[in-house]
Amino acid sequence: MNKTDATILKIGGSVITDKNGELTAQTQVIDRLANEVEKADTRNLIIVHGGGSFGHPAAQRNAIKEGLRDPKQLVGFAETHHFMTVLNGLMMDSLIMHNVPAVSVTPSSCITTENGRIKSFEDTPLKMLLETGFLPVLYGDAVIDTKLGFTILSGDQLVSTLATKFNADRIIIGVDVDGLYDADPKAEKTAKLFTHLTIDELKKLKSKLGKPTVCDVTGGMFGKIEELLPALERGITATIVNATKPNHIYRALKRDSIEGTTIEKR
Amino acid sequence: MNKTDATILKIGGSVITDKNGELTAQTQVIDRLANEVEKADTRNLIIVHGGGSFGHPAAQRNAIKEGLRDPKQLVGFAETHHFMTVLNGLMMDSLIMHNVPAVSVTPSSCITTENGRIKSFEDTPLKMLLETGFLPVLYGDAVIDTKLGFTILSGDQLVSTLATKFNADRIIIGVDVDGLYDADPKAEKTAKLFTHLTIDELKKLKSKLGKPTVCDVTGGMFGKIEELLPALERGITATIVNATKPNHIYRALKRDSIEGTTIEKR
Repeated sequence: MNKTDATILKIGGSVITDKNGELTAQTQVIDRLANEVEKADTRNLIIVHGGGSFGHPAAQRNAIKEGLRDPKQLVGFAETHHFMTVLNGLMMDSLIMHNVPAVSVTPSSCITTENGRIKSFEDTPLKMLLETGFLPVLYGDAVIDTKLGFTILSGDQLVSTLATKFNADRIIIGVDVDGLYDADPKAEKTAKLFTHLTIDELKKLKSKLGKPTVCDVTGGMFGKIEELLPALERGITATIVNATKPNHIYRALKRDSIEGTTIEKR
Repeated sequence: MNKTDATILKIGGSVITDKNGELTAQTQVIDRLANEVEKADTRNLIIVHGGGSFGHPAAQRNAIKEGLRDPKQLVGFAETHHFMTVLNGLMMDSLIMHNVPAVSVTPSSCITTENGRIKSFEDTPLKMLLETGFLPVLYGDAVIDTKLGFTILSGDQLVSTLATKFNADRIIIGVDVDGLYDADPKAEKTAKLFTHLTIDELKKLKSKLGKPTVCDVTGGMFGKIEELLPALERGITATIVNATKPNHIYRALKRDSIEGTTIEKR
């Protein structure tokens, strides 16, 4: 299959929520981003957003990622999914107010995983929504898992899967820092930003950084990018930009030059 | 396949919303119903709710049922779906507050129709959610239609399809009147309630009532029941009860005797 001109835009949970307070949304940021999406008017766009302070505390409290081990977790799963739909509702509110024909597609209604990896993705409505001219919006979600009972599906895994499924030509990752650094930019002032990386450079970086899953010195960013590798291997370009800065998402959508990290196959 | 002990509970949009004001929810009624569902503790239960003043005004304003004829309708479709998710969110809020492990399953994320009739229903997550012990909650929704572009999927069609799919043994229809009458009970005080009907009696009644789709003298109830015929033909019992009256849904779920209309195959 040839690449289409589809774009997958990820909005990190840390951009649209306040991690210091459970269920605290950054509604002004959400509205600004909806406005940027409206202005950019990108066709074949799919948005995926994270959970931030809506998804994570409930998921952690109820150990949803680890799977079903106690019937008491059932209400915790229900709660985690519900909180994600509440955050998603705020995104949808803003997008529709900005006249964007955005339609939420609920991951837990069409996806199951096996040991945390997507196993079935029933996508007839999603594909037809995109073809009809809608902007589908998905999110990290609590989902049924065929081995664990249930688990958490990250927005990052979803991004990579969607990019491959729709033969996207690019992925834009909106986060709360300027891109991928050689250290956590929130902790170390001397952290150096990578502006351009190939997959080979990324892999070399990985062996240099050690085991990011155990201790990610980049502040969690490396783990997110690793999830994108299957899409990057297919030649899809990923650009990491700071979505907390006004017009950075807009400029990325418009393919204007923008501060950030671009990762390409070669 | 044998019948299971699954129950499909429909909650009419007129029960949980106020038809006189757009986007006006009857939150006290929603909370009472959530409490009744918690008390009844019914296993293998699926809930479907209607749209009332959340779904209907936006759907009508944008002619969603009639299909896609103008790109301007796209935002109207997005709005209609979004409003339904807002009403659904209020239901989920209450159910989860009452410790019910309820998980919303978004019809437009897993169903497409063809000329208004369900064509594809990708149900892997729905089936597994039910098996895992969750209470799936669905609703009338704006959906993709392979012929019309999009349309409205009624909660009633969803109920009939789910009852057949899950080999339910019963359907409970919660409405804002006491059951099926020979005239509109809201308009005619002399309207007589049917307490028990067979399919044959229902069909005779239909020829007597004329064409309910053109002018439903029963106040819209006959049309809803007609949608259930495929399920009734399979031997599934349907009971119509007044969900605005406290404990009627609870008693129906507990299989206690209750004022209403029961429809059986014979």
